[in-house]
Amino acid sequence: MSEQVTVTTGTPDTGNSAPRRRGRPGYDLEAVLRVAVEVFNERGYDGASMEDLSKRLGIAKSGIYHHVSGKEELLRLALDRALDALWEAAERARTLEAPAIVRLETLVRDAVAVLDARLPYVTLLLRVRGNTEVERAALARRRAFDALVASLVEEAERDGDIRADIDPKLTARLLFGTVNSIVEWYRPGNSAASLADAVCTIAFDGLRVRK
Amino acid sequence: MSEQVTVTTGTPDTGNSAPRRRGRPGYDLEAVLRVAVEVFNERGYDGASMEDLSKRLGIAKSGIYHHVSGKEELLRLALDRALDALWEAAERARTLEAPAIVRLETLVRDAVAVLDARLPYVTLLLRVRGNTEVERAALARRRAFDALVASLVEEAERDGDIRADIDPKLTARLLFGTVNSIVEWYRPGNSAASLADAVCTIAFDGLRVRK
Repeated sequence: MSEQVTVTTGTPDTGNSAPRRRGRPGYDLEAVLRVAVEVFNERGYDGASMEDLSKRLGIAKSGIYHHVSGKEELLRLALDRALDALWEAAERARTLEAPAIVRLETLVRDAVAVLDARLPYVTLLLRVRGNTEVERAALARRRAFDALVASLVEEAERDGDIRADIDPKLTARLLFGTVNSIVEWYRPGNSAASLADAVCTIAFDGLRVRK
Repeated sequence: MSEQVTVTTGTPDTGNSAPRRRGRPGYDLEAVLRVAVEVFNERGYDGASMEDLSKRLGIAKSGIYHHVSGKEELLRLALDRALDALWEAAERARTLEAPAIVRLETLVRDAVAVLDARLPYVTLLLRVRGNTEVERAALARRRAFDALVASLVEEAERDGDIRADIDPKLTARLLFGTVNSIVEWYRPGNSAASLADAVCTIAFDGLRVRK
């Protein structure tokens, strides 16, 4: 999964191929964003102030405003890191030439990979409650993602591949509830692929041994 | 599941069988606790002040201090509402005379019932991050609960009833990750029993139709 960095203000690309993070660390947008997400996840977005970020980064607030217009833009950029990656996975699942059940399994695996690659951003996304414009926009994108999952489940039910005795919306919620719950304990560096295997095995084939 | 109310201060039981909540509402410990949990869940425990609670209740702060020593005691009482009920379910699963897989399924069903009966309290519990003494004590009780789940999974694996190709701790985490994820969207009044059926069917028997 490629890391797409959306730089909206500051630090124009000079075309210089040398590493950009020279000199004192913590000054480029990427570093500011990484620390902002850390602080948002620890204190909650509402509880975190630009003052907190400035202290944690060890730079003046003006050093942050050089990159972004404020806290809400940091939130938007951070949430987009999670949402863009999940949406990319959803697009892949939507357009793959395969039965719906295979596309659903692929989406589960890709979502676990996104979670592994962008854990703090996904964690932040899953805690969003909709108190601001930016949060409501993020929730709308999450709902669109959930709707796609439910439609894949529905299609797989019509194909006769997934049990039809549970409402597709509920199935979709429980399936991605399992995936999302991983953020509560996962530490990147574990094997994301074998974790994805475990999730798919339990969800699609069940825990019970057939005798 | 019986509602056990632990009244630690204030409002002694007068033995009067008439309803206790007469006159202006919002003054007994139960009502204070209900509103406190609501505010904690909305703003986060750290972000909520006694001032916020006093405003929401429409009473002076002294009216709250009549019942509890402060915010942290409210948190402890609230978390115990969730933990006591979950622990009661765990004790039942531990002592039931049945194979481990049946006790595990029973625990999943009981946990969904606790979630239905005490949704705001369980929601609060699942958001605890361990910033205070009370939160760390709650996390320790959660860990003991998780250890019991893992030991049931392990026992069911030894019985040959649950697939042994996934680590029992991981199985336990994913199983209760699914259960816990329900707080994100569940509204009490839905049928908790049929929700528990769906969770058990997916987790134990899997989504895939066997052909």
